[in-house]
Amino acid sequence: MKHAIISHVGIAVTDLEKSIPLYEKLTGMKVKEIEEVPSQKVRVGIFSTGGEKAGFAGGNIELLSGTSEDSPISKFIAKRGEGLHHLCIYVDDIEKQLALLKAAGIRLIDETPRLGAEGHRIAFVHPAGTNGVLIELEEKPK
Amino acid sequence: MKHAIISHVGIAVTDLEKSIPLYEKLTGMKVKEIEEVPSQKVRVGIFSTGGEKAGFAGGNIELLSGTSEDSPISKFIAKRGEGLHHLCIYVDDIEKQLALLKAAGIRLIDETPRLGAEGHRIAFVHPAGTNGVLIELEEKPK
Repeated sequence: MKHAIISHVGIAVTDLEKSIPLYEKLTGMKVKEIEEVPSQKVRVGIFSTGGEKAGFAGGNIELLSGTSEDSPISKFIAKRGEGLHHLCIYVDDIEKQLALLKAAGIRLIDETPRLGAEGHRIAFVHPAGTNGVLIELEEKPK
Repeated sequence: MKHAIISHVGIAVTDLEKSIPLYEKLTGMKVKEIEEVPSQKVRVGIFSTGGEKAGFAGGNIELLSGTSEDSPISKFIAKRGEGLHHLCIYVDDIEKQLALLKAAGIRLIDETPRLGAEGHRIAFVHPAGTNGVLIELEEKPK
């Protein structure tokens, strides 16, 4: 399996049901699935070419809406409005990447990997140290 | 050639020479190339797996810094700070997608395609109509 650099881009939206048809018009594709992630208090509309079947993964769009006011996404929208929320990057070895960043003095949200959707190992890096971009690292599945 | 949904994500940065080593640490990859686009008054650091050779394109990161104060990137940073700037989406038929968006009343920056880097046909959609995201549409090269 080949992986793009970007696993996905997360976009914070207020109303998933309105934004899905909009992104269908933008991309010319149908939404692939809608998933609820109770731990993050979000519902996610995933746009993917499903390239995994053709041997490559990544480059997807995830529309994110909060399921309650204390969802990280609802708080983000209240503060900054809708828009690009985070960038998820594939890495080969997440521990190695986190160690490199830590050694460079870059502020991490997660010092050790945790489990994200589909059991993938992920960690967030604080936007203060990454040109204002909230970065999620995702280890390529073995 | 297969294409991810995302061609690339553009990140506005003040100092390209500082941000390139940072993104090398984040991605675990070396920058692929640095390009200057005089028409946009930007210098671009491109991170790409070079998946084209393996039959797929996209999912890249472009670090963008302005080469003068009136560069769109310098203006963006002056107003909003560094961060995620735009999302470029691959489409099969850019005229068809623009017509669909126009019919839906979505505000376009470019009503007709223009030529972007490498002679690709592109058009920008205004963030007012797309959940606050500046979207670039890029037609997949034939």
